[in-house]
Amino acid sequence: MQAFVDRLIEQIALKESCAVVGLDPQLELLPPALLEPIYQKYGHTLESAGRAAEEFCRRVVDVVAPHVTAVKLQLGCFERLGWMGMKACADTIRHAQEKGLLVILDGKRADVGVTAQAYAEGYLGEVAVAEVPQTPWGADAITVNPYLGWDGIQPFVEVAKEHGKGVFVLVKTSNLSSGQVQDLVAEGRPVYAHLAGLISSWAEELMGTHGYSSLGAVVAATFPRDAARIRTLMPRSYFLVPGYGAQGGTAQDVIPSFNPDGTGAIINSSRAVIYAYYQPPYAEEFGPERWEEAVESAVIAMNDDINSALAQHYPQPGRRGADDLRTGSVT
Amino acid sequence: MQAFVDRLIEQIALKESCAVVGLDPQLELLPPALLEPIYQKYGHTLESAGRAAEEFCRRVVDVVAPHVTAVKLQLGCFERLGWMGMKACADTIRHAQEKGLLVILDGKRADVGVTAQAYAEGYLGEVAVAEVPQTPWGADAITVNPYLGWDGIQPFVEVAKEHGKGVFVLVKTSNLSSGQVQDLVAEGRPVYAHLAGLISSWAEELMGTHGYSSLGAVVAATFPRDAARIRTLMPRSYFLVPGYGAQGGTAQDVIPSFNPDGTGAIINSSRAVIYAYYQPPYAEEFGPERWEEAVESAVIAMNDDINSALAQHYPQPGRRGADDLRTGSVT
Repeated sequence: MQAFVDRLIEQIALKESCAVVGLDPQLELLPPALLEPIYQKYGHTLESAGRAAEEFCRRVVDVVAPHVTAVKLQLGCFERLGWMGMKACADTIRHAQEKGLLVILDGKRADVGVTAQAYAEGYLGEVAVAEVPQTPWGADAITVNPYLGWDGIQPFVEVAKEHGKGVFVLVKTSNLSSGQVQDLVAEGRPVYAHLAGLISSWAEELMGTHGYSSLGAVVAATFPRDAARIRTLMPRSYFLVPGYGAQGGTAQDVIPSFNPDGTGAIINSSRAVIYAYYQPPYAEEFGPERWEEAVESAVIAMNDDINSALAQHYPQPGRRGADDLRTGSVT
Repeated sequence: MQAFVDRLIEQIALKESCAVVGLDPQLELLPPALLEPIYQKYGHTLESAGRAAEEFCRRVVDVVAPHVTAVKLQLGCFERLGWMGMKACADTIRHAQEKGLLVILDGKRADVGVTAQAYAEGYLGEVAVAEVPQTPWGADAITVNPYLGWDGIQPFVEVAKEHGKGVFVLVKTSNLSSGQVQDLVAEGRPVYAHLAGLISSWAEELMGTHGYSSLGAVVAATFPRDAARIRTLMPRSYFLVPGYGAQGGTAQDVIPSFNPDGTGAIINSSRAVIYAYYQPPYAEEFGPERWEEAVESAVIAMNDDINSALAQHYPQPGRRGADDLRTGSVT
C-alpha cells in the first residue's frame, strides 16, 4: 500500500501544483443561483442546507480537480449543518476521490486513546460491523490537535500506517491569539518548538519512499519567521500551510515552509478561491452566475502565484524533482 | 434565559447527584440482544451501527435520567459510525433533553475564528437557513481544546452567552501523555496553570447567578494534585471531571476538584456505567440480558460513592446548598 505522503508528492509533481483548495461551505456565501432551486424544493431547512453544501462542494471539486493536489474539508462547516451536513461531507469525500483528488479532513481532532482511535478508524480507516469492515468516511488525511500529547496522536498514526493515510498535527496556527499557548516559552523554547521536536521523532513511524513522512504539520503562513524555525526542526514532515489568501498570507510568506530543495509544503486557500465570485478581481469579470469560472480563474492564479515564488527562490531543484517523478526515475 | 451553569447547579441539587454518564457507544461492547435484531433487519452495515448506537443511548438515557444531572456524548464514538452515527447523536441529544437531562457534547473542538463559530453555532446555537433559524444539534454544552488560544474559544463563549449554553475548556486531561504539552513549565508555571489563569479571566463573560460561570474546565481525576492547584486558580468555573471509574480515578481523587464548600464539579463515568453488564460486580448479577439493570445499579453506586466522599470531606455546606435550592431560597 502506498503511503499518503508518496501519493501526495506524486500528485504535486504531476499537477505542478502544491495548492490545496479548502472546502468551507458557508450557506451565507453560496451563489444564489445554486441555493434558490434547492430552497424551492426542500424549504428553508437543514435538508436544504446539506444539499446545497453537497452540490456546491461537488461543483467546486469538478472545477479544481485538474489544477490541485488535494481538497481540505473544513469539518466544522459541515457539522454546523447537522447530520445532513455530515452526509454532504461523506458525499464530498467520495466525489473528490473519484476525481483523483486527495482529501484532507480539517477536523483538528484529539482525544484520549480510545476516542482518538474512534476518530482515526472512523475518518481514515475501517470500522468492523459484526466483523464486516465498513469505511465510514475514507478520507486520505486528517488534522489533529496536539494538546493531549502522544496519546491523542498515536491512534491516528497507527491507522495511517495500516491504511496508507496521513496526519497533520497543529504546530502553529494562523490566528492572532495562537501565541497564548503555542508561544509560551518553556526551557528556552516556545511550546510550538517543543512540539516540532516531538513530531519530528514521531514522524519516523510513517516514513514514505521519497524522504518525507506521512506525519505532517499544520504551520501557518501568517507567522513566516516561526515557520522557518519549525521547518528546520522537522525537515521530513510535509507542512499543510493555512493562512494564504483570505487570511492575509502571501506567496512570499509561504516560502519558509518549504525545504531548501523547494519541496515539503502544500498551501491551502479556501474562501479566496471558492468564493472568488464576489471578490475582486473576479466579481466584476464573472459575478455570481458564472461562479465556477471565478473559482477556476482563482485557483489557476493561486498556482501561478505560488509557483512563481517557488521558481524565484528555488530556480532548479523543485522542478527537477517534479521531472524525475514524471519520468519515473523517482518512484 | 437561564445560564447553563445555573441550570446545572439546580439539577445537581434536585437530583442530589453530581454524576454525569458518558455515552460512548462502541459497537463491540453493545449487548448482543440489542444488536442482533438490528443486524437481522439492516445487515452488517453502517445503518445498523447508527441504529444500534441510537437505541443503546436511548435506553441508557431512560435508565439514568432520574439519577444524574447530565449525559456527556463522546462525539468521536458517533462520528466513527459515519453520518448515520451523527444522526444517532442528534436523536440522542433530543431524547436526553426530553428526559430532563442536560447534554454535554465531548467534542474537544477548536479552530480559528470562523470555523470555531461554525462549531459553536452548530452544536450550541442556531443556524440561519435563508433567515429561518434552525437548530442543528441543540446541545447544552461542549468541550473545547485551548491550543489555539482565545480565538478558538471566544466564538463558543459568544454563542453560549446568547443561548444560555456552557463551555468546558480542556485544562488537564486524564491520559498519561497529557504532560507532554500541558505540564511544560513556562515562566515558572506549567502550561495548564497559564490556561487556568486565562480561563478564569474569560469566565467573567459567562457568570451565572449562583456564583459560578458557564465557562468551565475539563480537569482529570487522574492527577488530583494538579486538580487541587487548578481549583485554586479558577474558583468560579465548574469542573467536568473525567477519569473516574474505568480510567482509574476514585471518589477520593475527585475531591480536589470541588471548592471548599463541596460544590463546583461534575464527575463523569462512561464505560464503568454503560457497560456495567460485563464487568464485576454487575456481570454476575445481571449479565447481558439484563444490561439496563446493571446500568442502573452502577449509576446508583456511583452516586453513593461520590456523595459519601463529599459528605466525609464537606459535612455540611454541599447539602445546605442543595436544601436552599430545593426550598427556593436560592434561585
